[in-house]
Amino acid sequence: MVIINLARRAHNHNWELDPITRSLLDTDFYKLLMLQFIWKHFPKTRASFSFINRSAQVRLADMIDVDQLREQLEQTRRLRFHKSELIWLAGNTFYGRRGIFEPAFLEWLECDFRLSDYELSTHDGQISLTFHGLWTETTLWEIYILSTINELRTRAALKDLSELELDILYARAKTRLWEKMARLRGVPCLRVSDFGTRRRHSFLWQEYVVNAMTDVLGQNFTGTSNTYLAYKHDLEAIGTNAHELPMALAAMAGDDEELKASQYRLLDLWQQTYQGELLILLPDTFGTTQFLRDAPDWVANWTGQRADSKDPFVAGDEYIAWLDEHGRDPKQKLFIASDSLDVDEILALHAYFAGTLRNGAAPSDFHQATDFLDEKKWSLERRIRFSAGWGTLLTNDFRNCNPRGDDAFDPASLVCKLNDADGRPAVKLSDNFRKALGPQDEVERYRRVFGLEGMAEIPVVT
Amino acid sequence: MVIINLARRAHNHNWELDPITRSLLDTDFYKLLMLQFIWKHFPKTRASFSFINRSAQVRLADMIDVDQLREQLEQTRRLRFHKSELIWLAGNTFYGRRGIFEPAFLEWLECDFRLSDYELSTHDGQISLTFHGLWTETTLWEIYILSTINELRTRAALKDLSELELDILYARAKTRLWEKMARLRGVPCLRVSDFGTRRRHSFLWQEYVVNAMTDVLGQNFTGTSNTYLAYKHDLEAIGTNAHELPMALAAMAGDDEELKASQYRLLDLWQQTYQGELLILLPDTFGTTQFLRDAPDWVANWTGQRADSKDPFVAGDEYIAWLDEHGRDPKQKLFIASDSLDVDEILALHAYFAGTLRNGAAPSDFHQATDFLDEKKWSLERRIRFSAGWGTLLTNDFRNCNPRGDDAFDPASLVCKLNDADGRPAVKLSDNFRKALGPQDEVERYRRVFGLEGMAEIPVVT
Repeated sequence: MVIINLARRAHNHNWELDPITRSLLDTDFYKLLMLQFIWKHFPKTRASFSFINRSAQVRLADMIDVDQLREQLEQTRRLRFHKSELIWLAGNTFYGRRGIFEPAFLEWLECDFRLSDYELSTHDGQISLTFHGLWTETTLWEIYILSTINELRTRAALKDLSELELDILYARAKTRLWEKMARLRGVPCLRVSDFGTRRRHSFLWQEYVVNAMTDVLGQNFTGTSNTYLAYKHDLEAIGTNAHELPMALAAMAGDDEELKASQYRLLDLWQQTYQGELLILLPDTFGTTQFLRDAPDWVANWTGQRADSKDPFVAGDEYIAWLDEHGRDPKQKLFIASDSLDVDEILALHAYFAGTLRNGAAPSDFHQATDFLDEKKWSLERRIRFSAGWGTLLTNDFRNCNPRGDDAFDPASLVCKLNDADGRPAVKLSDNFRKALGPQDEVERYRRVFGLEGMAEIPVVT
Repeated sequence: MVIINLARRAHNHNWELDPITRSLLDTDFYKLLMLQFIWKHFPKTRASFSFINRSAQVRLADMIDVDQLREQLEQTRRLRFHKSELIWLAGNTFYGRRGIFEPAFLEWLECDFRLSDYELSTHDGQISLTFHGLWTETTLWEIYILSTINELRTRAALKDLSELELDILYARAKTRLWEKMARLRGVPCLRVSDFGTRRRHSFLWQEYVVNAMTDVLGQNFTGTSNTYLAYKHDLEAIGTNAHELPMALAAMAGDDEELKASQYRLLDLWQQTYQGELLILLPDTFGTTQFLRDAPDWVANWTGQRADSKDPFVAGDEYIAWLDEHGRDPKQKLFIASDSLDVDEILALHAYFAGTLRNGAAPSDFHQATDFLDEKKWSLERRIRFSAGWGTLLTNDFRNCNPRGDDAFDPASLVCKLNDADGRPAVKLSDNFRKALGPQDEVERYRRVFGLEGMAEIPVVT
């Protein structure tokens, strides 16, 4: 006899909404660190964010029901931080330190935090979505909206598949995940963390991936940027800060001189806020080369650097040379790569920075985990501590997994960016000319102030 | 709130036995057809069967708990045919005909059928298992014992895996199954059926495979040899007869002349029993070439032939030439291959027999389903109707699927063979010298009587 759970079945048949964001902790950890920073220093600053689909060929509004998106956003706005979540934020150690969140901030999170209003519409097959309000009310929207839109797109594509096809889709994705993990398993001193919340296939898939990485990689899996998964599964929450901070401080600068100095003023404010912890540089907002060249010497005291838009082999070498110039030991510093990584590049970067290549072997030779066990090819003489922040291709690699053979599950390049702070437009140059964001005249002003040194893809004017 | 089904959970925690054989229909359909034949013509004949592990390197008794095996066998012996199963056997059409099972036989199945005693022991890492009794009581053990031992071996290997590794194991097996099905899908006129009950990974996996084949291949999946799955999922039950019948009749033959004639006496009895239906020759028991050469002309009236030990390309050509000699149209006949098939060979055989190759293309050129849509390479001028009986590599292809990397889930070559009938030893020669079964002196007598023409792997005496 098979006993049916009648209550469960009736409940399942009457679902009105299957929420995507079920906890306000379901966001990147750095958003919470930055929220505390904003709450402390810029509580009255207004800031707007916009959703941007960089994969223009993916006509999101044709795939996703905008009414469902609105229901999800309304559901997210009704969420509050749970008591047990706030107790965890207060009592857990982050980067080895307890009490990283102030009691007053946690009380504000519990009693006064809210998410801003938004404007949602569709135009020519695309979703238009902006968030206006206090910076403290708009900043957290970024991750919720990205994971929500990605998952709604996933759900829409899943709807077209039969039960067998669904099973095969996940069987293939699991098979691929396993092959990737098998190549990373056993590589000495490797450090990999999950940075894939915003581009994930779905919450449940990210949870599966994070649990699998924990099981298979053990100590080599250093944690997840997803605060809720860290909370739920006793993992390290990973991340420090992002481009929105230098972008906002630059926007609010009074003149070109203040603009140039704003990138260091932010570092000063940040290290005051976190008392010497969480000191990871993100130098590419307006170009890494000018950032390092013109930085005050105390910047070299920071723990490490995250490279997000420059070729990471080049960015790491540049950082090591700069540390040498400033008399700091690179072996004690941390270099983090986080831009479109996959297994091959993670292994090659690890070999390049954490080991010394012998016999003139190229980094690209280090594509097999077994190479790392071959003492003839390399040795563990590290140049700098290296860590990989693995995003989209960890939590959303469904390429060629769809039994229907189409690209409905391929990841799309979705972002949510700061538009303005205190009414002044925000700009990001990055280390790649094509990745610049902001009004064209402001981008040009920034390029005059910061220069173009070390940037890629600069158009050739003949 | 998640409501736990407390009754289910308590029940699951208190399982004493998870039965492998849950229905007496969970056997190959031909066993039931043969059982009726034996019940009708040989109700008093005694016959013994023995379990044989041809993969000597697989030390079954070290993997499987013999007490558990005994519990499973006792559980199987307590099974009875259910009323609804007997009603289905009576009312369903098999090969287009209703009433293939006589009311008296079904009544006997309901009231008098029982499974024989057995002797179970272990020796040097191997399981020794024999069944003694009336032929009607021993014959059905064959499939139950093979599927039970295979599944106990599977369960023992599954026990060593973590939950994640179990998930990856099945993800890989599903991924492989899908790749196989994708190559067969859309091939015009292809006919494939499941012959994999005896060597299956487990009952649930065979059920998954059969349901997937139904979904993906549609009309090209012609059914399953598993009677219970045919009953449960409204599929065609496939199969007619097996080597045990000619082996038993040969064993009971009075002298060499009767021995030689017994292979045709069986056909005569069979066609009387089934009134001109289910007429598939299985000519390889004592060698296909002598069987065809010496057969009375009426044998060429039979519907088709199953090749089980000869190279199927050779066996099919030989059958077609023989039909031509006897003035029968091969295009109206059916040729079934059932020996260790996998996708490549199925596609090549289908191209070879169901189509005419052009421009000197070799059968091995037809390894991709898309080739079949390429009119330049072949045309649909069939030489004979072809059907593939796909066994082990359909229902138990877990090679390289084990995340632990060992061969614990690779299929083993297990068989259960007729030892004797009416106290006289049974022999099988087959078309391959190395596959001969029986006492050596009897095998030599049979070789003198039937000859060696057309056999493979004959040892060279220098």
